[in-house]
Amino acid sequence: MVGIIMGSLSDRKVMQEAADILTALGVTWEMDIVSAHRTPEKMVEYAKSARDRGLKVIIAGAGGAAHLPGMVASLTTLPVIGVPVKSSNSIDGWDSILSILQMPAGVPVATMALDGARNAGILAAQIVGTFDVTVAQNLARFKEELKEKVADMSRQLTTP
Amino acid sequence: MVGIIMGSLSDRKVMQEAADILTALGVTWEMDIVSAHRTPEKMVEYAKSARDRGLKVIIAGAGGAAHLPGMVASLTTLPVIGVPVKSSNSIDGWDSILSILQMPAGVPVATMALDGARNAGILAAQIVGTFDVTVAQNLARFKEELKEKVADMSRQLTTP
Amino acid sequence: MVGIIMGSLSDRKVMQEAADILTALGVTWEMDIVSAHRTPEKMVEYAKSARDRGLKVIIAGAGGAAHLPGMVASLTTLPVIGVPVKSSNSIDGWDSILSILQMPAGVPVATMALDGARNAGILAAQIVGTFDVTVAQNLARFKEELKEKVADMSRQLTTP
Amino acid sequence: MVGIIMGSLSDRKVMQEAADILTALGVTWEMDIVSAHRTPEKMVEYAKSARDRGLKVIIAGAGGAAHLPGMVASLTTLPVIGVPVKSSNSIDGWDSILSILQMPAGVPVATMALDGARNAGILAAQIVGTFDVTVAQNLARFKEELKEKVADMSRQLTTP
Amino acid sequence: MVGIIMGSLSDRKVMQEAADILTALGVTWEMDIVSAHRTPEKMVEYAKSARDRGLKVIIAGAGGAAHLPGMVASLTTLPVIGVPVKSSNSIDGWDSILSILQMPAGVPVATMALDGARNAGILAAQIVGTFDVTVAQNLARFKEELKEKVADMSRQLTTP
Amino acid sequence: MVGIIMGSLSDRKVMQEAADILTALGVTWEMDIVSAHRTPEKMVEYAKSARDRGLKVIIAGAGGAAHLPGMVASLTTLPVIGVPVKSSNSIDGWDSILSILQMPAGVPVATMALDGARNAGILAAQIVGTFDVTVAQNLARFKEELKEKVADMSRQLTTP
Amino acid sequence: MVGIIMGSLSDRKVMQEAADILTALGVTWEMDIVSAHRTPEKMVEYAKSARDRGLKVIIAGAGGAAHLPGMVASLTTLPVIGVPVKSSNSIDGWDSILSILQMPAGVPVATMALDGARNAGILAAQIVGTFDVTVAQNLARFKEELKEKVADMSRQLTTP
Amino acid sequence: MVGIIMGSLSDRKVMQEAADILTALGVTWEMDIVSAHRTPEKMVEYAKSARDRGLKVIIAGAGGAAHLPGMVASLTTLPVIGVPVKSSNSIDGWDSILSILQMPAGVPVATMALDGARNAGILAAQIVGTFDVTVAQNLARFKEELKEKVADMSRQLTTP
Repeated sequence: MVGIIMGSLSDRKVMQEAADILTALGVTWEMDIVSAHRTPEKMVEYAKSARDRGLKVIIAGAGGAAHLPGMVASLTTLPVIGVPVKSSNSIDGWDSILSILQMPAGVPVATMALDGARNAGILAAQIVGTFDVTVAQNLARFKEELKEKVADMSRQLTTP
Repeated sequence: MVGIIMGSLSDRKVMQEAADILTALGVTWEMDIVSAHRTPEKMVEYAKSARDRGLKVIIAGAGGAAHLPGMVASLTTLPVIGVPVKSSNSIDGWDSILSILQMPAGVPVATMALDGARNAGILAAQIVGTFDVTVAQNLARFKEELKEKVADMSRQLTTP
Repeated sequence: MVGIIMGSLSDRKVMQEAADILTALGVTWEMDIVSAHRTPEKMVEYAKSARDRGLKVIIAGAGGAAHLPGMVASLTTLPVIGVPVKSSNSIDGWDSILSILQMPAGVPVATMALDGARNAGILAAQIVGTFDVTVAQNLARFKEELKEKVADMSRQLTTP
Repeated sequence: MVGIIMGSLSDRKVMQEAADILTALGVTWEMDIVSAHRTPEKMVEYAKSARDRGLKVIIAGAGGAAHLPGMVASLTTLPVIGVPVKSSNSIDGWDSILSILQMPAGVPVATMALDGARNAGILAAQIVGTFDVTVAQNLARFKEELKEKVADMSRQLTTP
Repeated sequence: MVGIIMGSLSDRKVMQEAADILTALGVTWEMDIVSAHRTPEKMVEYAKSARDRGLKVIIAGAGGAAHLPGMVASLTTLPVIGVPVKSSNSIDGWDSILSILQMPAGVPVATMALDGARNAGILAAQIVGTFDVTVAQNLARFKEELKEKVADMSRQLTTP
Repeated sequence: MVGIIMGSLSDRKVMQEAADILTALGVTWEMDIVSAHRTPEKMVEYAKSARDRGLKVIIAGAGGAAHLPGMVASLTTLPVIGVPVKSSNSIDGWDSILSILQMPAGVPVATMALDGARNAGILAAQIVGTFDVTVAQNLARFKEELKEKVADMSRQLTTP
Repeated sequence: MVGIIMGSLSDRKVMQEAADILTALGVTWEMDIVSAHRTPEKMVEYAKSARDRGLKVIIAGAGGAAHLPGMVASLTTLPVIGVPVKSSNSIDGWDSILSILQMPAGVPVATMALDGARNAGILAAQIVGTFDVTVAQNLARFKEELKEKVADMSRQLTTP
Repeated sequence: MVGIIMGSLSDRKVMQEAADILTALGVTWEMDIVSAHRTPEKMVEYAKSARDRGLKVIIAGAGGAAHLPGMVASLTTLPVIGVPVKSSNSIDGWDSILSILQMPAGVPVATMALDGARNAGILAAQIVGTFDVTVAQNLARFKEELKEKVADMSRQLTTP
């Protein structure tokens, strides 16, 4: 089970991609709104109980001064994946990226590309796939599909 | 009383400047190490009890993915002043600045220049000076001294 | 009483948010157009008389080479809050932010996020709330409302 | 078993921190020099055989136009952790960070802070800890130690 | 013969400009979809066989963490021209530029301006023109046409 | 007569280069410390009286949130040349540059390269040279000397 | 007489503002298309003959790798004003700004804000105004008008 | 024959690396000081006569507002390789890079990494290698040596 959280409903459009690819790869997930700045107590509660509730990985999306992924990582020993969201109040995404990426030694956050929620889902599945053979096989199949798509595009381009 | 906090003893060299100018301006202060990422519970406790312990302003210094000022601001209604520290693991200070500055609507942090702890102390005194006449007078005197220093430098430059 | 100033009517759309939240938090305000570069004398007059006219805090919004907040801060001992405005002639807002943020030691400006006028209003109220109990209570209530909004969004997301 | 690779011996000083913390957390590792640009065939071979050789996670450090982590991720379904190294030919680390972070949808790299090899080791241990209880316990103990260090610094600061 | 490759059909709009100017300058070309991250084996095959297939220059376009030009350059001794594409997932193009430009010593990529596919075609023709007199003459004629266009614009501007 | 001002004696090392080249080009100058933030009234006085005191051009150097050149330009109709100084509290000089360069329409500042005081002196001489034939001739001679220096270096390089 | 040049007709929309304000301030001008990269010989000819043709100032606008202002400055002793144009192929204007601003010691270009053609015209008039009393008076009147516009906006804002 | 030019003797330390690798790869070269801003006429002469003097490729190194590579490219149809030099007056190299990279459509410059003179030499050899079999063989041998060095480092690392 992967936990997906974000600071606001407005981030959902981006974060839903994580949920969709997890489903496609055979990994279950739950999703909630947890705001570091507006509901700090809920965030503490969420992060501290995550392992006991059976979560294996937490995906946290946030924009601007994006503190949610790093704060959750400070409160759990589960792997935390951070998705910098290019929200409307962001400076081209640099603030979101740097606030998530530049964590101090001791508290890592696995940072994804800007708006990279789909990759967050894939990474979460890769983590699950380190001990779950079915998910590992799904990932191998998924990699084949990526190859297929390029082959399709290649045919499209080169066929008159 | 102003509370000064920072994530690590290594930030003290910078943050001491806030304390020194507060003393010079007649404002009392306390100082502690509070880390958002290593002691999140202590941070919650510190911020939530701050007003009741008589603090009027909190100054928080942090570097890299600098979450301390914003997280403290999420847990109190006191004014919070953030000092981006150009720590060794910072990317020229941009990460520290953006993590503190770009707070979402609802939770302000009064952001200072990079390593601007002295100005954090002055701003804290200005806030105290809105209701404390003595501090306001100290600030007016301090402004005169700034002028005097420039006059001194001007004399130095133009006197052969 | 909080003074809200900006260099041009075109900044009003952003700066009105400061006024609106101040009203909501029970703090009075006045608003005017004061340009550092087009009306430097009016700016000097405004800043030097601010304390005597009963202002407690000044909020100044400006874009591009944004000198208004810093220059006002050089002319008063009141706390000055600067709002970097992402005006049309700005380079993604970096010029506005750096011109306001990077004040030299001695003259602080409490810098907000890009277009962060709403937070400027809240910070001004927090400053007033250091000596005005009613405003402090309004701020506590406002914080509860932020929490409520997240709870609402959480219900929306998780209720099928 | 965690695989640690880097493009040059000159990156070893940074990357050794990953190995050290893995040892401290009870996770075995191997280390090698694999260069995307100078030994592309070795890189392909390394990445494609990684899962079968029993690796659970790959940590790849690289600087400048840092292609190693992303290319390895394209050739395996294991989780890949990328460490942007601030090498001498790097532009303040921005090139290293962006070359690793901004992977296209389909091929994630878990990006760490600049020179964040220690966090890469911790994240690798967290991934192992999703299925290995001993490592998970080691991580919990490690988190306690972080807290202890802050308490120590706090005592140092506040004890006259 | 010049080889033009790109990671996705979505880059074609930009990259077609390289093909068009090559045709205009009398240089033949072939075009294909080759993705560093989705079809790494095809990329290796393409690059290693390029010289034997009679290619003289390879033009590779890519966006985001743009590894295609550098990886191809690592696998051939032909000149490789890289075109940073400002794809939708790019951070203003900085990631594409730095991932292509900042190659380590030993493996050069001739980097063009953002979306500079037309210049990539001209540079490829200039390389062919070092040994092919007809192409060199075409380039000289092309330079004259550039001059003519400015003369035309000058007449348009200054003729009432 | 050219006026050279700067906010602090610490800027003198850089700004002296403007004075030196002015002397070499036969243009008189005066120099003073004028701080926008510490002596705003002196700055107003300086700028408003500049034309009547016989100044033809003002050169203003400043670092960080560099308001001096722009504020002086707002108070005079003389040409103002701004020199961004890479002071110790500057973020790689970006703050100094943007605070001086990005002036709003109506109030230009002729911005020089970072620490470009020597060029500020040359530009001031070029302005004087628009109406003073001797200075124009000095500038022509100076241009010849630049050429000579390159010829010297060329000889040094190519003579075995 | 002020010479206004630009590399392409597409820059005219921006550069016309320089001509318009010059006309308003009573300064004559001429305008032409001169491209550093497409008509280097015309550029050399234009710059070398400028003083003899009676020009007092040259305004040059350019985007991207903007070499026109600096190259013209290398070929004349007249003051050269550079306008960085945010053309379509520019990276947010940073390339245009830095290519114009960062001239080496010996060859200054008076750099304006991004798209700051209006200010280029005003600065050119200020240079002319150092020896032409009528233009100086026009500039003083223009400054009054700037003040008036702010007063108008102030009335608009504060009148119910 | 490859022509290597630079604006100042101070760039020689960096640019000599291009000459050294060319010698190692069996390609002849000449070197001279040619400054775009101080000797524009020499630059025009150099570039226009280059092909007739038998040059096949021109390598131009420059820092700050680096106009030399682009201006030379505007005056010849030979391939021009630009090396952004991180000179002392450069802003972390960004100005050098952008001034060389962002050439307008029609006039390409093959841009290398910051201080990437060695790669400029290799690219020049690759261009010569498109028609000179011996040089092509030298390049193949050079690629093998790169591989060998990594193998050496790998042995060093893994041998106890």
